[in-house]
Amino acid sequence: MKRNVIVGQSGGPTAAINSSLAGVYRTAKDRGAKKVYGMLHGIQGLLQERYIDLSEHITNELDAELLKRTPAAYLGSCRYKLPEIHEDMGVYEKIFEILNKLDIEAFIYIGGNDSMDTIKKLSDYAIITGQTVRFIGCPKTIDNDLALTDHTPGYGSAAKYIGTSVKEIICDSFCLEYNKGLVTIIEIMGRNAGWLTGAAALAKGEDSTGPDLIYLPELAFDLEKFIAKIRKLLEKKSSVVVAVSEGIRIPDGKYVCELGNSVDFVDAFGHKQLSGTAAYLANFVAGEIGCKTRAIELSTLQRSASHSASRIDILEAFQVGGAAVKAADEGDTGKMVVLERISDDPYQSTTAVKDVHKIANDEKLVPRDWVTKDGTYVTDEFVTYVKPLIQGDVSPVMVDGIPRHLYKPGFQEKL
Amino acid sequence: MKRNVIVGQSGGPTAAINSSLAGVYRTAKDRGAKKVYGMLHGIQGLLQERYIDLSEHITNELDAELLKRTPAAYLGSCRYKLPEIHEDMGVYEKIFEILNKLDIEAFIYIGGNDSMDTIKKLSDYAIITGQTVRFIGCPKTIDNDLALTDHTPGYGSAAKYIGTSVKEIICDSFCLEYNKGLVTIIEIMGRNAGWLTGAAALAKGEDSTGPDLIYLPELAFDLEKFIAKIRKLLEKKSSVVVAVSEGIRIPDGKYVCELGNSVDFVDAFGHKQLSGTAAYLANFVAGEIGCKTRAIELSTLQRSASHSASRIDILEAFQVGGAAVKAADEGDTGKMVVLERISDDPYQSTTAVKDVHKIANDEKLVPRDWVTKDGTYVTDEFVTYVKPLIQGDVSPVMVDGIPRHLYKPGFQEKL
Repeated sequence: MKRNVIVGQSGGPTAAINSSLAGVYRTAKDRGAKKVYGMLHGIQGLLQERYIDLSEHITNELDAELLKRTPAAYLGSCRYKLPEIHEDMGVYEKIFEILNKLDIEAFIYIGGNDSMDTIKKLSDYAIITGQTVRFIGCPKTIDNDLALTDHTPGYGSAAKYIGTSVKEIICDSFCLEYNKGLVTIIEIMGRNAGWLTGAAALAKGEDSTGPDLIYLPELAFDLEKFIAKIRKLLEKKSSVVVAVSEGIRIPDGKYVCELGNSVDFVDAFGHKQLSGTAAYLANFVAGEIGCKTRAIELSTLQRSASHSASRIDILEAFQVGGAAVKAADEGDTGKMVVLERISDDPYQSTTAVKDVHKIANDEKLVPRDWVTKDGTYVTDEFVTYVKPLIQGDVSPVMVDGIPRHLYKPGFQEKL
Repeated sequence: MKRNVIVGQSGGPTAAINSSLAGVYRTAKDRGAKKVYGMLHGIQGLLQERYIDLSEHITNELDAELLKRTPAAYLGSCRYKLPEIHEDMGVYEKIFEILNKLDIEAFIYIGGNDSMDTIKKLSDYAIITGQTVRFIGCPKTIDNDLALTDHTPGYGSAAKYIGTSVKEIICDSFCLEYNKGLVTIIEIMGRNAGWLTGAAALAKGEDSTGPDLIYLPELAFDLEKFIAKIRKLLEKKSSVVVAVSEGIRIPDGKYVCELGNSVDFVDAFGHKQLSGTAAYLANFVAGEIGCKTRAIELSTLQRSASHSASRIDILEAFQVGGAAVKAADEGDTGKMVVLERISDDPYQSTTAVKDVHKIANDEKLVPRDWVTKDGTYVTDEFVTYVKPLIQGDVSPVMVDGIPRHLYKPGFQEKL
C-alpha cells in the first residue's frame, strides 16, 4: 500500500468487532500504509470529519492485545443509511472530498447487513465517478444473519456467553424448590434469526439438562401448545427452563412482547414501550398454571461480554480484518470478506471475498430442518454447526481484579 | 470426629456456596468423619428425609475442584423458617429423630440471616434437651449483609461479576450514538443493603469512566434530584450510565419499582407483579428528558456466574466450610464462622467463630459515610473495602467450549 487506510465500525457492538479493528490495523501497517485512520461513529462521524489516527491508540503490541479484549465498538458505532446515489449526490461528494483529503486508498467497514449496503453504495459511486478508493466490508454481527459467509465474527462469542449463562441459570433454577414448580423464561436477542437463541442448546451436556424448550423467531409461536408443553414438563420436573427469542410471534404475525403491553410505559414521544417477551410469557404461565415463574433477559451483555469471548471467534475476527485490507491492496472493491468452513472436526476455516451486492440487505435464517419437527428445540445439525465457533478462551488481562480494556483516559467520554 | 456430619445449603444461591460445601466435606473427611451427608433442599428436605451420601458425588479431587466451580446450591436450597421451639416441638423432635438415626455429630448449615436463625433454634433445642449434636453456621450471601463478619463468601464473586459487567455495559453504551444522548439504568440486587450496587464502582479506572451515578437502598431516592443530575450529565456526555439497587425507595418509603406498576401483570393469585426499578426509571427519564434510555437487569446471573468467580472468594468459602467442621469437632455449637480482615494491603484474613444469637435475623448495611454526601456514589473507603475481595480468578474447567460443573447425569432433574 502506498497511501492511507480508513476503517469504521457500524451497527450493533460485539465482543469481537475490535479484534477485526486490530486485524485491519496490523495488516495495513504490514503492507506499508502510511496512516490508518479510524472514523468515530462510522460514516455518520466521518461526515462530520470525526476520525482519529489509530497509531496514537495502538502504540505497541500490548495495546493490540488489549484492543482484541475490549468489547463494543472502540471507534463508536452508528446506524446510518446512505441515501440512494441518485437521491442525494451531495452526501457522496462530501464523503469523497474527505477521503481524498485524507489520501485514502482503502476504506474498510466492519458491520452487518446495513453496513454492507454502505460499502455497496460507496463502491458503486467510486466506479461511476472513476475514483480509486477501494471499499471492502468486514462481516460482524452477533446475529449471524449475513448471507454467503459460513458465520459472522461476533456470533461465536455471543453463543459461548449464551451457552454458559443459560447453563448457570439452569443450576440456579434447579436449586430453588417451589411446591408447584418453577418456570424460568430466558429471553435472547435476535428479532428475525434464531442463531443466538439456538445457542442455548450448548448448555446441554453430561452435567446439565440444558433448557427444556427453545423457541426461534423463524417459526410461529403457539401459546396454547406452549402451555401444554409446560404443564407436561412440570409433571416430571420441579424446574423448567425455556429459551425464547425476543422476536417470537404468534401465528397472526404479532410479536409476543406486544401482547401484554402495559398502558403505563409511554415515552416522551407517545410511543408505547414494549415489555419483554420473557416477562409476558412468565406472567402468562403464572396466570394459566399458577406456578412460580421468572423472566430473565440476557440483555446487552450477550453482545458485550468480552470476558468470556471465544478464542476461535476473536482469531477469526482478526483474520477477516486483515483479509479485508489484503483484498483492497490487491485491487478488490465492492466486496465483503467471508468465512468458509473447510471442516467441522477438526474445525478449519479460511477467508474469501464475495460481491457485496449479493450480501447487502439480505438475511440468513436458521434452516427449517435445523429445528425439530414440533419447533421446540434445535437439532444436532445446529449444535454441530455452532460448537466449533465457541471453542477456546481469550483470557482477559486482569488488572486489580477486573478485565482491562484499551481505552485511554478521556477518550471514552469524547466518543 | 467419630461419627457423621450432615451439611445443608439454604437461602439464595451464590457462585461460592459449593466451595464451602467442598470445604465441609474435605475437613470432615480429614478429621475422620465416617459419613458426610448432604440434605437436599436444606432443612425442608431433611424433614422429608431427603439426603445424599456426599462420597458418592465427590469421588476424587477433580470432583472437588468441579464442585468449587459449580454455581448455585449443589444440594438444592430452601427458604424454610423453623417455628419457635415452644410453638411446635413436633418439628424439632422429627429433626432430631432423623439426625440421631443418621448418627450425626455435627450439623453444618451454609446460609444467610434466616439460615442462622435455624442454627440458633436447633442448637438451643439440643442444649435444652441435652442432646450432643453440634450446630455450626457457615456464612453465605451475595448480599454481604451478615453481622459480625467482615464480609460473606459469595459477595466477592458477585461484586467481581458486577464490576466486570457494568464496565462492559459502559463500553457498549458509549459506542452507540444518539442525538439526544443515551441513559442506561442498570438494576442490581440487594433489597435493603447496597453492598452489591456499590460494587458497580469497581468498573471505574484508567480505562473506564465507571458509572456516573450509584444509588444504594440505604438512602431515600429523590426523583427530582435524580432527573436534575441526569440533565446536567447529558450536557457534557453522550452516554450516562446509572447503577441502582432494586430496593431504592422514595422518601415516603414506597419502592421505586412500585411507582410504575402496570395493571396488566397480575398473577394467578391476583398479586400484582412489580415491574423492575430500572425499567421504571428508564421510562421516567425518557418521559422527562425525551432522550433514548435503556434498562438492564443484571438478574440471576450476578449470583450464579461461576465462570467469573473471584479466587479470594472461592478460597475463603472453602476455608469457612472447613472452619465450621473444625469448630464443631472442637466442641462448639450455636456458632457461626466469621471472616476477620487482618489487613487490606496485602490483603489477609482469618476465620473465627461467633455466637449465632448475635448474628441471626440481623442485617448489616453500608455505613452512611461510605456513601458520598449527596448520596449518588460510594466513597474510596467502600472501594478499598471491596477491592481485595474480587482479586484473582478461578479458571473454569472448560469442556467443549463451556464451563464444566459437577452434576452427574440425572441428579439435577431429581433435585
